[in-house]
Amino acid sequence: MKIAVVGGGSTYTPELVKGLMEINDCVKIENVTFLDVKEAEEKFNVVFEFVKRMVKDKFKIEKTFDPKVAFDGADYIVFQFRPGMLSARINDEEIPLKYGLIGQETTGIGGFSAALRAFPLIEKYIELVEKYSKAFVINFTNPSGHITEFVLNYLKFDRFVGLCNIPINLLKNLSELIGCKIEDLFVKYYGLNHLTFLEKIFAKNEDVTQKIFQLLKMHLANVPGDFPADLIEILELYPSPYLRYYLFEKEMVEKLKKEGTRAKKVEKIEKDLLKLYESSDSIPQQLMLRGGSMYSTAAANLIKDLATNAGTIHIVNTKNNGAVTNIPNDYVLEIPCYVKANRVFPVSLGEADEFAVGLIHIVKMYERLTIEAYLYRSRKKALKALLLHPLGPGWQEAPKILDDILKANEKFIDLS
Amino acid sequence: MKIAVVGGGSTYTPELVKGLMEINDCVKIENVTFLDVKEAEEKFNVVFEFVKRMVKDKFKIEKTFDPKVAFDGADYIVFQFRPGMLSARINDEEIPLKYGLIGQETTGIGGFSAALRAFPLIEKYIELVEKYSKAFVINFTNPSGHITEFVLNYLKFDRFVGLCNIPINLLKNLSELIGCKIEDLFVKYYGLNHLTFLEKIFAKNEDVTQKIFQLLKMHLANVPGDFPADLIEILELYPSPYLRYYLFEKEMVEKLKKEGTRAKKVEKIEKDLLKLYESSDSIPQQLMLRGGSMYSTAAANLIKDLATNAGTIHIVNTKNNGAVTNIPNDYVLEIPCYVKANRVFPVSLGEADEFAVGLIHIVKMYERLTIEAYLYRSRKKALKALLLHPLGPGWQEAPKILDDILKANEKFIDLS
Amino acid sequence: MKIAVVGGGSTYTPELVKGLMEINDCVKIENVTFLDVKEAEEKFNVVFEFVKRMVKDKFKIEKTFDPKVAFDGADYIVFQFRPGMLSARINDEEIPLKYGLIGQETTGIGGFSAALRAFPLIEKYIELVEKYSKAFVINFTNPSGHITEFVLNYLKFDRFVGLCNIPINLLKNLSELIGCKIEDLFVKYYGLNHLTFLEKIFAKNEDVTQKIFQLLKMHLANVPGDFPADLIEILELYPSPYLRYYLFEKEMVEKLKKEGTRAKKVEKIEKDLLKLYESSDSIPQQLMLRGGSMYSTAAANLIKDLATNAGTIHIVNTKNNGAVTNIPNDYVLEIPCYVKANRVFPVSLGEADEFAVGLIHIVKMYERLTIEAYLYRSRKKALKALLLHPLGPGWQEAPKILDDILKANEKFIDLS
Amino acid sequence: MKIAVVGGGSTYTPELVKGLMEINDCVKIENVTFLDVKEAEEKFNVVFEFVKRMVKDKFKIEKTFDPKVAFDGADYIVFQFRPGMLSARINDEEIPLKYGLIGQETTGIGGFSAALRAFPLIEKYIELVEKYSKAFVINFTNPSGHITEFVLNYLKFDRFVGLCNIPINLLKNLSELIGCKIEDLFVKYYGLNHLTFLEKIFAKNEDVTQKIFQLLKMHLANVPGDFPADLIEILELYPSPYLRYYLFEKEMVEKLKKEGTRAKKVEKIEKDLLKLYESSDSIPQQLMLRGGSMYSTAAANLIKDLATNAGTIHIVNTKNNGAVTNIPNDYVLEIPCYVKANRVFPVSLGEADEFAVGLIHIVKMYERLTIEAYLYRSRKKALKALLLHPLGPGWQEAPKILDDILKANEKFIDLS
Ligand SMILES: NC(=O)c1ccc[n+]([C@@H]2O[C@H](COP(=O)([O-])OP(=O)(O)OC[C@H]3O[C@@H](n4cnc5c(N)ncnc54)[C@H](O)[C@@H]3O)[C@@H](O)[C@H]2O)c1
Ligand SMILES: NC(=O)c1ccc[n+]([C@@H]2O[C@H](COP(=O)([O-])OP(=O)(O)OC[C@H]3O[C@@H](n4cnc5c(N)ncnc54)[C@H](O)[C@@H]3O)[C@@H](O)[C@H]2O)c1
Ligand SMILES: NC(=O)c1ccc[n+]([C@@H]2O[C@H](COP(=O)([O-])OP(=O)(O)OC[C@H]3O[C@@H](n4cnc5c(N)ncnc54)[C@H](O)[C@@H]3O)[C@@H](O)[C@H]2O)c1
Ligand SMILES: NC(=O)c1ccc[n+]([C@@H]2O[C@H](COP(=O)([O-])OP(=O)(O)OC[C@H]3O[C@@H](n4cnc5c(N)ncnc54)[C@H](O)[C@@H]3O)[C@@H](O)[C@H]2O)c1
Repeated sequence: MKIAVVGGGSTYTPELVKGLMEINDCVKIENVTFLDVKEAEEKFNVVFEFVKRMVKDKFKIEKTFDPKVAFDGADYIVFQFRPGMLSARINDEEIPLKYGLIGQETTGIGGFSAALRAFPLIEKYIELVEKYSKAFVINFTNPSGHITEFVLNYLKFDRFVGLCNIPINLLKNLSELIGCKIEDLFVKYYGLNHLTFLEKIFAKNEDVTQKIFQLLKMHLANVPGDFPADLIEILELYPSPYLRYYLFEKEMVEKLKKEGTRAKKVEKIEKDLLKLYESSDSIPQQLMLRGGSMYSTAAANLIKDLATNAGTIHIVNTKNNGAVTNIPNDYVLEIPCYVKANRVFPVSLGEADEFAVGLIHIVKMYERLTIEAYLYRSRKKALKALLLHPLGPGWQEAPKILDDILKANEKFIDLS
Repeated sequence: MKIAVVGGGSTYTPELVKGLMEINDCVKIENVTFLDVKEAEEKFNVVFEFVKRMVKDKFKIEKTFDPKVAFDGADYIVFQFRPGMLSARINDEEIPLKYGLIGQETTGIGGFSAALRAFPLIEKYIELVEKYSKAFVINFTNPSGHITEFVLNYLKFDRFVGLCNIPINLLKNLSELIGCKIEDLFVKYYGLNHLTFLEKIFAKNEDVTQKIFQLLKMHLANVPGDFPADLIEILELYPSPYLRYYLFEKEMVEKLKKEGTRAKKVEKIEKDLLKLYESSDSIPQQLMLRGGSMYSTAAANLIKDLATNAGTIHIVNTKNNGAVTNIPNDYVLEIPCYVKANRVFPVSLGEADEFAVGLIHIVKMYERLTIEAYLYRSRKKALKALLLHPLGPGWQEAPKILDDILKANEKFIDLS
Repeated sequence: MKIAVVGGGSTYTPELVKGLMEINDCVKIENVTFLDVKEAEEKFNVVFEFVKRMVKDKFKIEKTFDPKVAFDGADYIVFQFRPGMLSARINDEEIPLKYGLIGQETTGIGGFSAALRAFPLIEKYIELVEKYSKAFVINFTNPSGHITEFVLNYLKFDRFVGLCNIPINLLKNLSELIGCKIEDLFVKYYGLNHLTFLEKIFAKNEDVTQKIFQLLKMHLANVPGDFPADLIEILELYPSPYLRYYLFEKEMVEKLKKEGTRAKKVEKIEKDLLKLYESSDSIPQQLMLRGGSMYSTAAANLIKDLATNAGTIHIVNTKNNGAVTNIPNDYVLEIPCYVKANRVFPVSLGEADEFAVGLIHIVKMYERLTIEAYLYRSRKKALKALLLHPLGPGWQEAPKILDDILKANEKFIDLS
Repeated sequence: MKIAVVGGGSTYTPELVKGLMEINDCVKIENVTFLDVKEAEEKFNVVFEFVKRMVKDKFKIEKTFDPKVAFDGADYIVFQFRPGMLSARINDEEIPLKYGLIGQETTGIGGFSAALRAFPLIEKYIELVEKYSKAFVINFTNPSGHITEFVLNYLKFDRFVGLCNIPINLLKNLSELIGCKIEDLFVKYYGLNHLTFLEKIFAKNEDVTQKIFQLLKMHLANVPGDFPADLIEILELYPSPYLRYYLFEKEMVEKLKKEGTRAKKVEKIEKDLLKLYESSDSIPQQLMLRGGSMYSTAAANLIKDLATNAGTIHIVNTKNNGAVTNIPNDYVLEIPCYVKANRVFPVSLGEADEFAVGLIHIVKMYERLTIEAYLYRSRKKALKALLLHPLGPGWQEAPKILDDILKANEKFIDLS
């Protein structure tokens, strides 16, 4: 089996490789090819050399700047690249803040510019995937759910699943709180990536929702702070930590302004990490600070279960397909799916909660308007998307903020 | 035919009566009975005496404080009462402003308190309507769409339609701009009451949308200001003027703060009007300032077409029932309906625009949470509703603002 | 306004023209062009000369064998041609009878061969309509509903409506029984063309269903016999007379065998009619025997209401679009529609009855399989369609009967 | 854990017990209580004594005629009783044959009378289950899917799943043909119990549908004969063997007439079996002739996976809930479900084939009419159901055949 990794120079790569080594007994990996871009050559080399020391001769690894070489004959392709690099992310986070709006990698206006930057690259890569392989794509590039909406519903390429490392962390968290194995859990969990809702938790035969809701705490590197206990009680849902950007909008804007953007911090962490990579043989502790914890477990196990026939449940981004009965079939959602035979089957969850339904719809419509803004290269649609987003600007600021975003990203996005 | 009018002391009553006199040839009205509450007796008398002078002996009119007397044997019942009177509306508008939020009779947090005040009264009246009559109810009480959602989907009483005077004004506006008769128009128009979207205008066989969008201006007494021309171009929709509360939230809050609440102004206008009513025989010009323009035409023609068999189109609030294919069948929407035989059949409109869909869903879910807050007397659900509304508070203010609202309305609302 | 008529040599043409003369005041017809095929030249001439004497100089009439000439600049186009002429219909009716199955122009296996013959011609004509005009097409060619399914859902041409003369006869019938005007009626009526169900009748404000169901009798030239009164009582529906082919299958087969096919009788009637046409100046009484009664009223009024702006209800074949809530939106159904501005808006009818739903689904799936058999030129799909139809053959006879049909229609249909 | 078995005197009981013994390690069974009726006491005793010798002291077994005793505190309840005993089944099969119609235990008119006989008993038992336990019910009583429709959609009792032994036999069959384990298979399989369709077969990552369709043969004791190879090719589906009753209706009626009813044969087999049971200590080979092969595996594994947390796929009868996107959510279907924590989650399958959709709808509507006939004790609805069924009578025979059925079952069914 051949696996290609787009964005091979990522500091997550060693962790991913560790995961692949663990599933290797089961799936027989022959070749892992890493793809990155010329401008990141130096970093790419550091990471690759480190990985080489890790893998030894377990399987063959290669590195390339040519997508054809990477994709040719691949069975699985992992997208984990960052369109525009960290420097672009800095803009994503800083521009909205100037207008008193949330600037975040995936949420609100920051996610909007990240998405517009990602779409052309994703479109190009998907074309090449189709041309050179029969591969199934696992996407980790952010905004992961938005990109999956784009690929499944607009590019109509269906060997594609969107992954996030939060669900697996949530399940781990739950299993520790309850004192059971992850396999013993079933969660009624649904929503858009980073806008998800945990409604029910079943441990073995028992509904433990009430008990656990009071104990659960999810901390994410990307979302400072915490949910007040009474908020969870009111919602009767445990939402993604990212919902704090909606419910504490003003406070979060203040915090972001004060503490500086996450992108800047990541830049620092990354520099340190790379230094460690140069000399290490195993993954340094510091990687945990990066925020992608358990990504490797999620990705490697997903590949394993797609490739073999285990038939286990993964929480991934895919078309609803009936799983949530009061959400249209074609919405890409983050939901529990039965994974088998390179196919992903959402399992039925019944009705979603009204609070969740309201937010899912408005943000999904924002997602689609943004995608159409890209596809039609339409400034109008882009403005319409911004005006609709619950964290977006009003009419007075919308055109200005869009101009700033387009200017800062002119190498990537061109609307007219 | 007997007609009952709940809120008979309204200053709109003379206009409604004028409308009834105009349809009288066609539908043979025998009796119109006005119902109001004791505390408004004085005003009620003034209005009633005025109406008496207008009607002469065209049909019998009566006044009562007893719903049984009013509803008994009625064929049509008009709800045009104001739960809590104008003084309560003043609170609705002022409390949110204290928190920097939109306070408006139907939109945002003002509409929320108005709705919570209305539900118990509506529930009681609907019970009595069912007990004493086979009547069809035409609702004008605000928030009109929210109340229709409550009656059709929760009380399951179906001889009920929600009316607003904006659609008929819009059609009149359009017919004047185009130079055609209202009957020559067909509009693709949909949404929630006061959150509607005009997407297409057909005049006779022709699609005149583009031409007319540039000319159209809707001015409402309740919504200061105007839409910038390029906003309409971007949306490719002509929205309800109330959408300005969403897209110009900050500016509108400033304006409201500066100009004082609408409720206060209405109080003044009303006083003047009542004085005029004492002495007039015909409707004074000043009524136009009240903001319910053409209400009488809308209501009287609707009664006529329900009662006779004309089979014309009215834009009313009723269950979607398939008309907008990408909105669930059971959502109460404001849409064009074919009216006949005391029944209201929405006509198919195809798909709604994504921008509209996003807002319709989130506000509908807010509506339902608010209704459930009333039905379960649940403070939790009320907070959940507030947190979801795009014009609502964040978590920090939500409990405080709810407390203020509950305190100011303690005679009407009791949640625990 | 220019109107083109495909199948101008039809003996219905004079009636259609009479209808057009009646609406002429309202819609200003300038030109009516008749199109037919060379092989029918003689008949075409007789009909055209007769029509000429009728029309005088009310509007210009032309005749042609060239679709381009007919369609060029047309505003409305009427399809009333018979693919394969009456001789092909004889086969449609006789082949199934050999196997003890219903042979009928539109129902069962006869309708199947008629449809396969019609599709290529319809496809060609629709291409030409698109090329040479902006016209709206009114289809009367049988099987009318099946053809509308083909055009709207597969050819994706949407200025098209399927017409049948039965609904208008039903309404006339009802209005006479009740003693009211057709405009005073509203019917809950739905289904596939010739497989329709009348569930409710409202006359003015009153539900008269129970009263009228006991009195109603529909006699069609194409369907011998009658419904027993208790059958209607059991179904709680008044179905299309064609349902007798389903519920009295054996008896109807016997009857058809004994009485000879309808096609043969039509041939005789037609000959007589043409003789009369040669000498008449006005429509002879004998046309009534033909079975298309009130076709002209239906077609001409539909054109009038599409062209002008009256906004009245017509029962036509179009996409459900939400009107019947428990039937998918995209099924072409025969339902009441509000007609205006060259558009056709189904009006909401609520849920269909379970008996009707069962039959509608199975026959719709048969329709689609048949259409796909044509589009993919697939003998397999054709067999699958035959096996599914409730009046179709079992596995033993299916291949034989399909061979007979393909052989008899080899000039029109070629599957492999 | 306590398990109750309704119809404990069934000759399948030993096999079921064998299954329970196999899962005992995993689920810890404490008590199995068998319930049957007085009139079957003798047979019940034979079976119970045999089972006693099998179980030894693995777990406690009891027998009773009192549902309270059986259900009290039960965790799982298995319904495997035969309403009306075999003698009633004889009527089910013979009455339709007199009219030239299919008489079969579950299919066509035989299934109709069996269902009407089952509903009152099922309704009574479900009431008692609710009263005395929190148990989950596994239903094997025929018609199993029809009964599940009744319980889930009409009785609104949701701890209920309908089981059939055909799916597990199909999977075993497939795994042997392919040479893989059952767990390595995933099938796109859907429909109504005994009217199912296998559309796709995935073995590990591979789509083996084409290859396997040509090799697959399903033989059922209840359905003589075989599918011709070209039929499968035409349908592009492998249907339930019971579809032969639809596609070979005439031939099957002949066969049934000639060979005598299945019920009579079962009577004979059963007598022999009971004799063997009297003396055996282990399950005799002859049980295979009974037709319920692998029932024990299906039922015991289902209980195990409901009780433990394995999270495996079972094909069972439950509400569609979005799994098949072009079938309504509420239809009870036989589909692959992810089973965990006493809950059953259908997995998404996408769209069903048109041929299947047509049949599923018409038979589901028949099922619902039949259920309503029982609930309203309505002879009219019963006739409507019969008239709709594709294997049902025409109008001439329908009332007669219904009278015969009601007469033969007067102890069980009373319609008016
Ligand atoms: N979904 C999740 O849960 C989750 C969690 C963490 C990170 N992420 C996402 O994963 C991605 C990678 O994160 P990271 O921190 O490793 O980012 P990073 O900045 O280190 O980038 C990863 C690599 O992508 C390369 N790259 C940039 N553009 C490329 C292109 N066009 N083609 C090929 N390679 C290209 C860069 O050179 C870099 O080596 C980001 O999109 C990030 O948002 C997702
Ligand atoms: N939907 C629209 O387009 C539209 C436009 C204008 C006004 N309105 C609504 O119509 C209603 C009446 O408006 P208005 O300006 O005449 O109000 P108003 O304050 O004059 O009230 C009308 C009458 O209702 C009476 N009333 C109050 N509580 C009552 C009760 N429980 N039972 C019976 N009568 C009661 C009052 O005494 C008063 O005489 C309001 O709800 C308003 O929001 C709707
Ligand atoms: N939907 C209904 O309610 C209804 C009722 C009656 C008749 N019909 C249908 O209307 C159609 C006409 O009926 P009719 O009795 O007048 O038939 P007809 O046999 O007289 O045919 C009408 C004309 O069509 C012409 N024609 C045949 N093939 C043609 C082609 N390829 N292009 C152009 N013209 C062609 C014939 O030459 C003939 O002059 C038939 O399809 C019939 O089934 C429908
Ligand atoms: N779904 C499938 O795949 C499948 C396969 C085989 C059998 N079955 C069904 O399983 C059921 C049992 O089959 P069987 O051959 O063992 O039948 P059976 O005739 O042996 O009956 C089983 C037992 O049910 C008892 N019984 C009858 N009425 C009862 C009542 N009201 N309460 C309690 N017990 C009652 C009988 O006395 C008998 O001992 C039947 O409904 C049969 O159709 C289903």
